[in-house]
Amino acid sequence: MQTTILEPLFNFENLVKPVHHSNGLTGQDIISVSQFDRARLAYIFSRAHEMREMVGRVGSTDLLRGFILACLFYEPSTRTSASFIAAMERLGGSVIPITQGVQFSSVSKGETLADTIRTLEQYADVIVLRHPETGSVQIAADYANVPVINAGDGIGEHPTQALLDLFTIQEELGTIDGLKIAMVGDLRYGRTVHSLTKLLTQYRVSLRFVSPEILRLPLVIMNEVIDAGLDVRETHDVADVIGDADVLYVTRVQKERFSDLAQYEEVKNLYEITSELLTKAKQKMVVMHPLPRVGEIHYNVDSDPRAAYFRQVKNGMYIRMALLAAVLGKA
Amino acid sequence: MQTTILEPLFNFENLVKPVHHSNGLTGQDIISVSQFDRARLAYIFSRAHEMREMVGRVGSTDLLRGFILACLFYEPSTRTSASFIAAMERLGGSVIPITQGVQFSSVSKGETLADTIRTLEQYADVIVLRHPETGSVQIAADYANVPVINAGDGIGEHPTQALLDLFTIQEELGTIDGLKIAMVGDLRYGRTVHSLTKLLTQYRVSLRFVSPEILRLPLVIMNEVIDAGLDVRETHDVADVIGDADVLYVTRVQKERFSDLAQYEEVKNLYEITSELLTKAKQKMVVMHPLPRVGEIHYNVDSDPRAAYFRQVKNGMYIRMALLAAVLGKA
Amino acid sequence: MQTTILEPLFNFENLVKPVHHSNGLTGQDIISVSQFDRARLAYIFSRAHEMREMVGRVGSTDLLRGFILACLFYEPSTRTSASFIAAMERLGGSVIPITQGVQFSSVSKGETLADTIRTLEQYADVIVLRHPETGSVQIAADYANVPVINAGDGIGEHPTQALLDLFTIQEELGTIDGLKIAMVGDLRYGRTVHSLTKLLTQYRVSLRFVSPEILRLPLVIMNEVIDAGLDVRETHDVADVIGDADVLYVTRVQKERFSDLAQYEEVKNLYEITSELLTKAKQKMVVMHPLPRVGEIHYNVDSDPRAAYFRQVKNGMYIRMALLAAVLGKA
Repeated sequence: MQTTILEPLFNFENLVKPVHHSNGLTGQDIISVSQFDRARLAYIFSRAHEMREMVGRVGSTDLLRGFILACLFYEPSTRTSASFIAAMERLGGSVIPITQGVQFSSVSKGETLADTIRTLEQYADVIVLRHPETGSVQIAADYANVPVINAGDGIGEHPTQALLDLFTIQEELGTIDGLKIAMVGDLRYGRTVHSLTKLLTQYRVSLRFVSPEILRLPLVIMNEVIDAGLDVRETHDVADVIGDADVLYVTRVQKERFSDLAQYEEVKNLYEITSELLTKAKQKMVVMHPLPRVGEIHYNVDSDPRAAYFRQVKNGMYIRMALLAAVLGKA
Repeated sequence: MQTTILEPLFNFENLVKPVHHSNGLTGQDIISVSQFDRARLAYIFSRAHEMREMVGRVGSTDLLRGFILACLFYEPSTRTSASFIAAMERLGGSVIPITQGVQFSSVSKGETLADTIRTLEQYADVIVLRHPETGSVQIAADYANVPVINAGDGIGEHPTQALLDLFTIQEELGTIDGLKIAMVGDLRYGRTVHSLTKLLTQYRVSLRFVSPEILRLPLVIMNEVIDAGLDVRETHDVADVIGDADVLYVTRVQKERFSDLAQYEEVKNLYEITSELLTKAKQKMVVMHPLPRVGEIHYNVDSDPRAAYFRQVKNGMYIRMALLAAVLGKA
Repeated sequence: MQTTILEPLFNFENLVKPVHHSNGLTGQDIISVSQFDRARLAYIFSRAHEMREMVGRVGSTDLLRGFILACLFYEPSTRTSASFIAAMERLGGSVIPITQGVQFSSVSKGETLADTIRTLEQYADVIVLRHPETGSVQIAADYANVPVINAGDGIGEHPTQALLDLFTIQEELGTIDGLKIAMVGDLRYGRTVHSLTKLLTQYRVSLRFVSPEILRLPLVIMNEVIDAGLDVRETHDVADVIGDADVLYVTRVQKERFSDLAQYEEVKNLYEITSELLTKAKQKMVVMHPLPRVGEIHYNVDSDPRAAYFRQVKNGMYIRMALLAAVLGKA
């Protein structure tokens, strides 16, 4: 065998990984909003606010240069995957985008989620996972040695959405305590409403739930709100809350939830937010929506300074930047 | 609530965005070839030429480092999306590739193009959009606050293709004025022919249009050429132009355009460019094609130095680099 | 025409491409394991080992900064495409991911593979190609002026898999010469077994082939092994080899290969590797598998330190990093 003498590619003496002080999230998975108490929320919001400042000034940074995110989406979600990709890229990191076709390849050969995850963690420093089955992200996290971030698992959790919703309230209004927050639309099936409500039980807020009878907030979540001792009311009519709400959090009322279409036709207009309706609202309040919208908020609202839903989208990028930096030990 | 004292992530005093002098394209959308007069064409071609030099010497640069391009393709186009992605990456920028599956996600939930664009602009600094509907890119640009670049909207425009075609003529032959340019094939439906012809009306060129009767250049474009006072002729036979053409711009004659297949069989061979045909052509001339080709140019032409169609592909990358740098204020 | 005086974008005097000494692979295509003799294997393994050290210390480097990889997959393979993407990104390079939808775009318009490749090489510095047809990657390489790396062409070759398999043996056991290596499962159709066996004929190893009768190693490969003068035995039962194997290379026995399902049911349990079976194996040995697995290796093996299949996945990234650096003249 021929002896090969090679000049070394790298001078290892110069290759030393800098140490960053931990914040309790380094190396952690982000699975559920239940991981976030007020101290941790304050921490993440503070970091997300810094990301907002940084992006506003220079667009991006090198904080995560050399790190790789595997973005694994078993069901497509352009909005969420684009947000995570942008977050990683604005921090100088790289992405392995697997946002299509997962179903055609290894999985179609019968590979388990656990094996797919243990394969991807050989390549990547952090994994963002969206999966149609509730609980699947926890399973993935149990097997992975790198942090796994939940980007939605079926009717389960979508914690980064809840964090960006709450962050938006704080960024827009400067505080969360003391606010009157109205949730409007499908409160029964909308997981964003459930997760945000859970987070809000940690604050001193008044909650107003506006929905048709068949789409009322589930009992179990209502009881959490009551147990937290919050001021809470339910109503069928947005007119009851528009006058003094600080936040109007609107979700889609899905036609397909109604067996009686006449009932749908009756309620749907009660929940369309228009510029006319907003003349009755406070001057300092915000209209939010997790998007996509399909008629719940009229386009004539878009130019209203209180329309916060696109700023809310941008806040999603800042929150994900803060989370990526945190779990990778860079914040 | 626990007070959190954090070391700031960024030293904002060092984060200052450098200022670049405007060139009239900073922040602009690129929708149509009608935006380009000769001065602006000269500007872009000069920048594209610099990009070519730079890539030839070092491959890439950091000019757009930290910038993010959202590449949103509602219909797949491997060639065009790969060209834009390469252009952004050779300038040091990052990409959010949404080149598949747009139809499965937000759009399938009923989101409008306007909302999709206003979402993506929260993440990206510039958006490249391909869409099957004519006029859709203008609508997107109307809503977006970041520059939108048209990568083809149905039978409408595909301006970067026309720019790269014209740029190729200049790079290959050193000039545009004074040339005799022959367009061959489907002149009726081929949008690349229409856009290139429009740009050429700004130069002192002779135009030759070679097509079957049913695929002649549309009246409206022919009239533009005549109004511009250019020397122009139409013919059915490529033999009429091969002897003194400086540029032979070949497009595909699509079988499916003919109701009478006998008619198709009759004309198709008139338009196949072969090495035998090129023996009758000038020594200094170029054969171009927007690609993909399906038989219009024989493979025996590929080794001919006058075969410019793959260099034309590369020029597409340079033109897109120049445009991206320009609209982002970095040129 | 208006004269435009422009400040140049780049100072070309500072733009000089550094020269790297060649290693015989610079600019080469990677098509087949037959390109690798022991000296070249030693070279690549040495570089891959350096990549492993570097990644372990700092995660990534700038060696290929500014270089672009076009990752062109005509059939999806999440594992392989993700591995190449990660390899390029950990070296600081960029990727044009074309891992879906190739069938919908240029190809569906009738473009040949040769034209697609000659288009992509205008954008990229290196092309990784997976294609369902045997021999197609060689055709692509014949046309391309940039290096083309075979990521699998049908029942043909998948050379980077064979290299990572052999590299894993060396990294895990410190040597290859002198080992007793057992291949288990489908030895007839498994191309990974064929390629690895070919590479192993260059070493002084003992080979044991364990398979059902209908899935025995093809004659032609068996003859290569015999011609190389290696100690070789075939058996139907893994029990015959478990006691003294240094390497147990397991592949999937595919149910669909059997016309008589009773026959399948009879053999399948002979080839399931379990922790119980491993009690009979040496303390210093490794279990390998190209993955995905579907029951051939029980999950109770995963925690055994001899289970090397996920480390094998990671070695794939290092091998691909070494190859990318080598063909791009940076090693």
